[in-house]
Amino acid sequence: MSKETNIVYVGKKPVMSYVLAVITCFNTANTKEVTLKARGQAITTAVDTAEITRRRFMENMKVSNIQLGTEEMPVEEGGTRAVSTIEITLTR
Amino acid sequence: MSKETNIVYVGKKPVMSYVLAVITCFNTANTKEVTLKARGQAITTAVDTAEITRRRFMENMKVSNIQLGTEEMPVEEGGTRAVSTIEITLTR
Repeated sequence: MSKETNIVYVGKKPVMSYVLAVITCFNTANTKEVTLKARGQAITTAVDTAEITRRRFMENMKVSNIQLGTEEMPVEEGGTRAVSTIEITLTR
Repeated sequence: MSKETNIVYVGKKPVMSYVLAVITCFNTANTKEVTLKARGQAITTAVDTAEITRRRFMENMKVSNIQLGTEEMPVEEGGTRAVSTIEITLTR
């Protein structure tokens, strides 16, 4: 039995496009869990997305888990640079 | 019996100044727990602080809790604006 998981990747679009993506995910049949993934400056947008969704649209939604991490990103000059990541799991 | 808790407020300084603040807190006698608090764009810096401290300086340190929230900030034009907040609890 596979667990239904939806992932929303957060980047540089306005925060409301990600809020809409989360709500759309939850409105799909039987979706109980949506995960927001972001890195670097988009981490703030991911947190905003979770907070706006919960406060303005889905008051019964909960943040069930938050995971921090680091990814090595290749840079133009060669070598890699460490970038922080976040995964926010939302459950209704 | 009061629990020893240290709080580091993360703002616009370079990330290494907050990493240093966290390490200094932990090196104070008997400190087992340090909390990073940030809001708005500084949320990314708080996550970077946690990740750099764990990966480069204190590999036995753990992120024991993360709490998201929203604060109403007054704006110049009158009224308030919602700003997301994060609290990252670090434990050794």
